[in-house]
Amino acid sequence: MVRERLGVAVVGAGYWGPNLVRNFATAPDWSLRAVCDLDLARARALAHRWPDVHATHDLDEVLRRSDVDAVAVATPARTHGDLVARVLAAGKHVLVEKPLADSLATGRAMVADAEARGLVLMTDHTYCYTPAVLRIRDLLAEGALGDVLYVDAVRINLGLVQPDVDVIWDLAPHDLAILDFVLPGGLRPTGVAAFGADPLGAGKACIGYLAMPLPGGASAHVHVNWLSPTKIRRMVIGGSRRTLVWDDLNPTQRLSVYDRGVDLAQQGADADDRRRAGVSYRLGDTWAPALAEHEPLGLVVAELAAAIREGRPPRTDGHDGLRVLAVLEQARTALAGDGAATRPAAPPQDVPVRELVANGGRS
Amino acid sequence: MVRERLGVAVVGAGYWGPNLVRNFATAPDWSLRAVCDLDLARARALAHRWPDVHATHDLDEVLRRSDVDAVAVATPARTHGDLVARVLAAGKHVLVEKPLADSLATGRAMVADAEARGLVLMTDHTYCYTPAVLRIRDLLAEGALGDVLYVDAVRINLGLVQPDVDVIWDLAPHDLAILDFVLPGGLRPTGVAAFGADPLGAGKACIGYLAMPLPGGASAHVHVNWLSPTKIRRMVIGGSRRTLVWDDLNPTQRLSVYDRGVDLAQQGADADDRRRAGVSYRLGDTWAPALAEHEPLGLVVAELAAAIREGRPPRTDGHDGLRVLAVLEQARTALAGDGAATRPAAPPQDVPVRELVANGGRS
Amino acid sequence: MVRERLGVAVVGAGYWGPNLVRNFATAPDWSLRAVCDLDLARARALAHRWPDVHATHDLDEVLRRSDVDAVAVATPARTHGDLVARVLAAGKHVLVEKPLADSLATGRAMVADAEARGLVLMTDHTYCYTPAVLRIRDLLAEGALGDVLYVDAVRINLGLVQPDVDVIWDLAPHDLAILDFVLPGGLRPTGVAAFGADPLGAGKACIGYLAMPLPGGASAHVHVNWLSPTKIRRMVIGGSRRTLVWDDLNPTQRLSVYDRGVDLAQQGADADDRRRAGVSYRLGDTWAPALAEHEPLGLVVAELAAAIREGRPPRTDGHDGLRVLAVLEQARTALAGDGAATRPAAPPQDVPVRELVANGGRS
Amino acid sequence: MVRERLGVAVVGAGYWGPNLVRNFATAPDWSLRAVCDLDLARARALAHRWPDVHATHDLDEVLRRSDVDAVAVATPARTHGDLVARVLAAGKHVLVEKPLADSLATGRAMVADAEARGLVLMTDHTYCYTPAVLRIRDLLAEGALGDVLYVDAVRINLGLVQPDVDVIWDLAPHDLAILDFVLPGGLRPTGVAAFGADPLGAGKACIGYLAMPLPGGASAHVHVNWLSPTKIRRMVIGGSRRTLVWDDLNPTQRLSVYDRGVDLAQQGADADDRRRAGVSYRLGDTWAPALAEHEPLGLVVAELAAAIREGRPPRTDGHDGLRVLAVLEQARTALAGDGAATRPAAPPQDVPVRELVANGGRS
Repeated sequence: MVRERLGVAVVGAGYWGPNLVRNFATAPDWSLRAVCDLDLARARALAHRWPDVHATHDLDEVLRRSDVDAVAVATPARTHGDLVARVLAAGKHVLVEKPLADSLATGRAMVADAEARGLVLMTDHTYCYTPAVLRIRDLLAEGALGDVLYVDAVRINLGLVQPDVDVIWDLAPHDLAILDFVLPGGLRPTGVAAFGADPLGAGKACIGYLAMPLPGGASAHVHVNWLSPTKIRRMVIGGSRRTLVWDDLNPTQRLSVYDRGVDLAQQGADADDRRRAGVSYRLGDTWAPALAEHEPLGLVVAELAAAIREGRPPRTDGHDGLRVLAVLEQARTALAGDGAATRPAAPPQDVPVRELVANGGRS
Repeated sequence: MVRERLGVAVVGAGYWGPNLVRNFATAPDWSLRAVCDLDLARARALAHRWPDVHATHDLDEVLRRSDVDAVAVATPARTHGDLVARVLAAGKHVLVEKPLADSLATGRAMVADAEARGLVLMTDHTYCYTPAVLRIRDLLAEGALGDVLYVDAVRINLGLVQPDVDVIWDLAPHDLAILDFVLPGGLRPTGVAAFGADPLGAGKACIGYLAMPLPGGASAHVHVNWLSPTKIRRMVIGGSRRTLVWDDLNPTQRLSVYDRGVDLAQQGADADDRRRAGVSYRLGDTWAPALAEHEPLGLVVAELAAAIREGRPPRTDGHDGLRVLAVLEQARTALAGDGAATRPAAPPQDVPVRELVANGGRS
Repeated sequence: MVRERLGVAVVGAGYWGPNLVRNFATAPDWSLRAVCDLDLARARALAHRWPDVHATHDLDEVLRRSDVDAVAVATPARTHGDLVARVLAAGKHVLVEKPLADSLATGRAMVADAEARGLVLMTDHTYCYTPAVLRIRDLLAEGALGDVLYVDAVRINLGLVQPDVDVIWDLAPHDLAILDFVLPGGLRPTGVAAFGADPLGAGKACIGYLAMPLPGGASAHVHVNWLSPTKIRRMVIGGSRRTLVWDDLNPTQRLSVYDRGVDLAQQGADADDRRRAGVSYRLGDTWAPALAEHEPLGLVVAELAAAIREGRPPRTDGHDGLRVLAVLEQARTALAGDGAATRPAAPPQDVPVRELVANGGRS
Repeated sequence: MVRERLGVAVVGAGYWGPNLVRNFATAPDWSLRAVCDLDLARARALAHRWPDVHATHDLDEVLRRSDVDAVAVATPARTHGDLVARVLAAGKHVLVEKPLADSLATGRAMVADAEARGLVLMTDHTYCYTPAVLRIRDLLAEGALGDVLYVDAVRINLGLVQPDVDVIWDLAPHDLAILDFVLPGGLRPTGVAAFGADPLGAGKACIGYLAMPLPGGASAHVHVNWLSPTKIRRMVIGGSRRTLVWDDLNPTQRLSVYDRGVDLAQQGADADDRRRAGVSYRLGDTWAPALAEHEPLGLVVAELAAAIREGRPPRTDGHDGLRVLAVLEQARTALAGDGAATRPAAPPQDVPVRELVANGGRS
């Protein structure tokens, strides 16, 4: 009988684990079987509300259970490689917290392993399942903005200084995953420049800026910051027809689409003509689409179940995770050697790009 | 008799000229004598409200007048070098629009010329005379923020694509001049990284990002953009004690000082100790100082008169203009060769830094 | 020759006079002939920028001039009755500051006088000529909001305590004139309740609330306040189809039209059925129409010229002014006898209502 | 042993019940014993997460339990009278949802009953336990605002049209309870004027305005609205020294204290002198106190336990509930007879006022 519930275990009872537990425990597709954490007390505290859920500190015990079909890994990034290898070796599907891994090489090994075994590896890019991001993706796909000219993302607040990763690896994955998800063809920067600052002497960047030229003259910029006393989560996507502003902290108008912009008169075909030609300004209306409210993690766990049942890659699979890791690695390279300098880094050649939507791509 | 009015002429009747004319015409220190523009009709249209003001297209005629003590130059940056040379050669003091010149070399020549002749050369960094910037400078000077850790400036809107300069040379001089004015010791980046984008094919960058490491581990970042459908003018100055946010478009609360931030416990003396030590968060009150309203250009023309009368450099003199030019030149170098790439550029060695406030500096 | 300029004089060089002077002086339809104020120095200070404009303290001298076709009266409300009578007796058209008079009776006499003499009497309801209000009127006329259900207007700030009028007579005329202008059929409350407060002991209300039932179950509420440390200028017009919010202090989105609201299912014809039936919620998109920028007073002086030339009433004529006065009088009646109490006051029977737009009304 | 947990049952599993259940279930002072709802399925759905909590539709069964010390009543207001009578008759303490009852008479009977039996009757005025309201109360008590001059409260959003109560009885209790809590001496209006509108024909007011003169020339105004497409929760408390603005939807600056206002020069003792005297304006700084975050309902259940253990009235007891009911009744009287008119209604004589803080009152 196809519609039987799938069994799942959650590994890691820290910051994100409770959200996974709550969503798996209440989802129609899933039976939550176990919560696993090296700190058994923490696993128990998380599991005790759900009488049928087992708490343990022993992953092998979890992996031996035949009623566990998938494992969600919500532990620090540096542990993902080993944990996922064990999960896959046990024949279980896996959902992995962002970032997929702490290096591109490790991420590649994980993805190759899952593919070799025919198991689903899903990256938990939760933001991609929010009503706002789903709508942005649709607007871009249907051409409402025209061609993308630039993206400017800001994600700053008074944040927890992480023990093992800098602010770029901590916060930028959100914006990179979103860009990969909404840009037709995915995130394919032709280079990455990075600037990081550690003014407190914390031993890692607490402020970061990424600049990425995109194909066709477009570009993307991401600003992340743990030291800002005010909180901003704002992404601007400037298009040739319209510009979208996503202000995630404005619940009554998260998305605004501005029919406002600069037009270059394009009488001639070549660049010189365009440069000589005048510019004009559009000052049109603004439109704020209504967004239904739903919890994005509910869609994540539903998508994982559907991918397993249908034997297909999930919407945010390992390759999406790799494209995010590729940019993070380039940023690390750009920053290396001089803690506060900036050098451009070329993209790796072997991370597959997302196929173009126009080609009837996978998403 | 000392308090006699000084005579002034305004050259350039374009965007900024009318503001200069209005302020000189109504200032108690000044008698506006002439308005000069190559387009005589434009000069006349601007002068006709002031019965005693002569309109002309002939600068030499203006420079021959003995009742003209100073000339304000509000023409495109590429003309500043020649015009200022003629003004100084005629023995007149000069007020120059920002940016001081279209190259550092030209700017240096202008400053050297004025100093050799003992004439006042003032850069019209108008923002430095606003109530908000004057207050920020005081707050930094008195230590209310502690040491500066980072600066993040955003100046974006739907702007006029300029015929001769890119967005960095058009808009960033405002933020650079402000930084030079408020930072104790002035703006002294140890490098400049720049990223520019021209997604419309306008022939020049319409989006620009500057990242500047500052001495002592601090850094500054400036984002300028002509293509944004929404307008933002915001500068954050993060300090070791408090953080200031200047939102110039919020008239009821332009300045907010947040007693909120991250503290590294500093039990040990060396960096490793600091890194191992924990961090803590301050979540204190916010304070928004009241600001008196005044027109900053009124202070500019008053300061020019005072500097001439007292034989001293004005608050924003040629050296301030040169420090701004030095950063713009470094950004140009960083961008050169690859329209959308980024390379760090070292600062020129011979632009004098502002003396430290602690040394009883000139301001 | 028809397109000859008309001559005008401005009486009153106080708060609003300078705006009238500037607009008449630069309008293509008008030649500004004179500025008149009991305080001759103030008249001169205002006139001196315009070489051809005569300054005087003698209204009779102005009224004797044959090159003056119209007079704009910008003096305190209590003087309007006498001044307008003199202007009309001299055969001149007249533009009168809001409120039209300090009592309904005086206003009626003014309007009757102008009509008897065949002269134009225009009320300077400047707000009715702003891009926002013109657009609101169009949206209501074309049915974009459906039937008006309620209006809620707030106009509060730290304001000048006026020597002769309370806050209701000072600020509410703006909102009442706007309502009269935008509501199809004009402002026709079936009663007026008022609440005023004078917590400082200033001798007059500094805080005021007006509540007005409108025909068909709708209602309007106006809140005015001189004591608020923050400034709000906001009007909500709730309609059966959509709701409009006008936030005059948000320049990037002054008007927002929300397709969001409560629907009563209306299966049955009578009220009981409706009450038993359920309600549902619409959560549709928001739309912010672009507004061209223009100075409304420029349209006011152009409309005055057009009305004089075409021998027709202007868009905001004396009857509009009377409908505003009628509400102010009702509010005064409601407040009388008990400084802080509230009683409903019925409307006067003889102030003509605006004809319905559906009847091909005058506007 | 005093610190044993108290037993509690929650009656009503609708909108508010789940919040009570969650807080009682996790509070150190309480053992949640039962959830009771006429709809047994709803009671079970709410109880099933807590293995030891009994679900039932039979209140008598709950009241017979000796391990239940208190009952929380979260049912529609019209049922409070009967339910609370049964709870008290069973010797249990009681926490009652706002409004305390659907009439002042019923509320009085409840309070008298509890006092006769020596049982605690607490009104669940949850807002009074929020960090913002607690801080406002402190600021007023310590004189930071000076004397209260006016209060203006707005609580509007797209709200559920309630089946049994109008918008005034639904939403205004929040603001009235807050005012009663923060005003030194409690809420003691000398009259209540009300204006209600039912533009949808829902059979009850969906828009309401209350105006209340307060002793000493102050006044309070409350605006509630179920039909607003935008959400506003804002209270302004104007004082003789400073003015406080509470914007509950601005998490980064909920409270702002403005040292900005109008001063009447007070050279003379009598009113005429004051009126002749000039006014001046203070334009001082703004200050936004930091607020700790906590869940207010956690404090409510802790306060209930403390009151029971210490044999004292809780912070928000039945008399607070009665003062709120008194205003609601006056508003109902004011609105009666004419659905959209307004008449002042005098306060009942026998609702005890809160003793003044200066007298060492109970709070």
